Amino acid sequence: MAGFPVFLLSDFGTHDTYAAQMRSAILSFAGYDTPLADLTHHVPRGSVLEGAFHLRACLPFLPPGSVTLAVVDPGVGTERRGLAALWRERLVVCPDNGLISFLPPPVPLFQLPPPEPSSSSTFHGRDWFAPCAARLSVDPGWIDSMKPLEDPVLLRFPESLSGEGSISAAVIHVDSFGNAILSIESTREIPSGDMTIRWRGGSRPLVRVDCYQEAQPDEAAILRGSQGFWEIAFRGGSAGEILGLKAGEQIEMILEG
Amino acid sequence: MAGFPVFLLSDFGTHDTYAAQMRSAILSFAGYDTPLADLTHHVPRGSVLEGAFHLRACLPFLPPGSVTLAVVDPGVGTERRGLAALWRERLVVCPDNGLISFLPPPVPLFQLPPPEPSSSSTFHGRDWFAPCAARLSVDPGWIDSMKPLEDPVLLRFPESLSGEGSISAAVIHVDSFGNAILSIESTREIPSGDMTIRWRGGSRPLVRVDCYQEAQPDEAAILRGSQGFWEIAFRGGSAGEILGLKAGEQIEMILEG
Amino acid sequence: MAGFPVFLLSDFGTHDTYAAQMRSAILSFAGYDTPLADLTHHVPRGSVLEGAFHLRACLPFLPPGSVTLAVVDPGVGTERRGLAALWRERLVVCPDNGLISFLPPPVPLFQLPPPEPSSSSTFHGRDWFAPCAARLSVDPGWIDSMKPLEDPVLLRFPESLSGEGSISAAVIHVDSFGNAILSIESTREIPSGDMTIRWRGGSRPLVRVDCYQEAQPDEAAILRGSQGFWEIAFRGGSAGEILGLKAGEQIEMILEG
Repeated sequence: MAGFPVFLLSDFGTHDTYAAQMRSAILSFAGYDTPLADLTHHVPRGSVLEGAFHLRACLPFLPPGSVTLAVVDPGVGTERRGLAALWRERLVVCPDNGLISFLPPPVPLFQLPPPEPSSSSTFHGRDWFAPCAARLSVDPGWIDSMKPLEDPVLLRFPESLSGEGSISAAVIHVDSFGNAILSIESTREIPSGDMTIRWRGGSRPLVRVDCYQEAQPDEAAILRGSQGFWEIAFRGGSAGEILGLKAGEQIEMILEG
Repeated sequence: MAGFPVFLLSDFGTHDTYAAQMRSAILSFAGYDTPLADLTHHVPRGSVLEGAFHLRACLPFLPPGSVTLAVVDPGVGTERRGLAALWRERLVVCPDNGLISFLPPPVPLFQLPPPEPSSSSTFHGRDWFAPCAARLSVDPGWIDSMKPLEDPVLLRFPESLSGEGSISAAVIHVDSFGNAILSIESTREIPSGDMTIRWRGGSRPLVRVDCYQEAQPDEAAILRGSQGFWEIAFRGGSAGEILGLKAGEQIEMILEG
Repeated sequence: MAGFPVFLLSDFGTHDTYAAQMRSAILSFAGYDTPLADLTHHVPRGSVLEGAFHLRACLPFLPPGSVTLAVVDPGVGTERRGLAALWRERLVVCPDNGLISFLPPPVPLFQLPPPEPSSSSTFHGRDWFAPCAARLSVDPGWIDSMKPLEDPVLLRFPESLSGEGSISAAVIHVDSFGNAILSIESTREIPSGDMTIRWRGGSRPLVRVDCYQEAQPDEAAILRGSQGFWEIAFRGGSAGEILGLKAGEQIEMILEG
């Protein structure tokens, strides 16, 4: 019987066969009919921050019961632990290095059993995390046998602060369309009046729109994105390039009048 | 029961998880055992023309009953319609912006029901088109309930004209091997004598061959490609780079003698 | 009934739909429930050497019974033969151009029946090799009807020679982390004392470690990699860039004392 779907997220790229070797390890353990899908293998190399963003952005759109194997693991081969996380009926398997930092609580965490002595010390994704994810996809109850993990490594989420007439935030990702995604959840409101955006590179007017096409071609616009956050965009252009914004950068939005 | 296979074509790239979110939406709707495969997510950003080429090139090689979800959608969030097309027993779901322009008739077209009010206004691929494609993969008869779409947006296919001793055509795609694919269907004949190619960048001799290895290393060659069109190629080199050809460019072939 | 899993390796890239057309050919022949997975489609264009490396590196991690379709085929359309190889219960289908060179013997080889006359002369991957791989995934016994292939085209594997106090080897791949993989199988021992690496670009100390994090940030390190070979790495850096190493390059390691 097929297990639950397994999704893969990593910084391995696709020029080597590393991601494929993780896939094969899952198929071998959980059965050839296990549904597998790549989220992306192009997380910037070693960037736990961007890995945490992607995990937070897409997990709500994955089916309940699914298992996501997230491997951005610059500490591979050192003593860092492995964990399983349970978030809204979805499971995540990853190193304990902050990848689960941005998941809104509650997020019960569990400690994976250590890797087999026979596993490679340089490729825990294939030899340790993938078999754990595979087992959880066919035997979700396995998690009940794991010890709780109480003190996870956590990243500090770039803060989004509302002051008097201004909103501070951080860019947490620039997507491949050039949209600069902000650390402001789209469930929050942003006033609809005129604004000015200020950042390291200068300042300029910012309009609030509901879809990309509402902005004028040269106009910096802010809108609710599809990934759970507000984002800064240019119609038919790249906000990342035009404004020179990068992940991690602070911005401030000044509300007029 | 598994639905028919669903194929995905987009300009989302694979550095974000957008394509994966469409996949997940399909799996959630149609069942985890739905066969899914990516055609490419690297259509040049916003290029409906190149999206239309890829759709035309690979559709004949996809199985009857399959559903292809094609999302190159620079107008996302505006009033443009969504459509379902039926071509030789294959279904296509896409925005009504010209993506189906190059499919040889007959191509009955149907209008998709509008997106759910809850769907994101910036990601119709995931929230509108993917669920429609998923439904058609398990319930192809759903199309009978849709209104015909009589006035689709159509691109004008670059013309291929045969004059007195010359053939005019356009480059419609330069593939990643550097082969410049022409707007001349491979079912047409091209005389086998000596030719000269003339284009914006100059002119040079052109030989007709049956496979890449028949050409000499520095020789511009024309042959029947594998994608349904004639193409210009260099043995072991890139016609796109050597001749400076790009999609959309006009060429002329002069037949000698 | 589903066939055995089929894995795909090629130099087609993912910007066109060539890899997808091979996938579709397999699904159409072997059934929609055939498990398919990409190894990589980013073998450097036309590099049989790197294709042979990838095949050797990942085959041990693919499940017994699986079929790997490997298409790096600069000679497409010429008279070169097609072959099926059997290695430790895994099957490989590929052109007879050296792709199976690095598989440790025994590797019984069989000659594929010639392509159908209707097949494209420029895309044997889709029209010849894919259907053969598909058939073997559902009917492995088909191989018994093929003629043995006794005289395969073979690459000469870059030699790894141990001299008096030194080890010569070649870089056979630089992976996307920048690790320079050497032509020394990881089952061999390398003395643990101090070493000096000498190559075209100069010489510098080399330390032997068990995982990347054991090296100092600016230190060239050698360790057993996860792909069956020893490799040269920098902690958090790219050995390929820092040392200027490329696939095919010779190096020498001098053992001190």
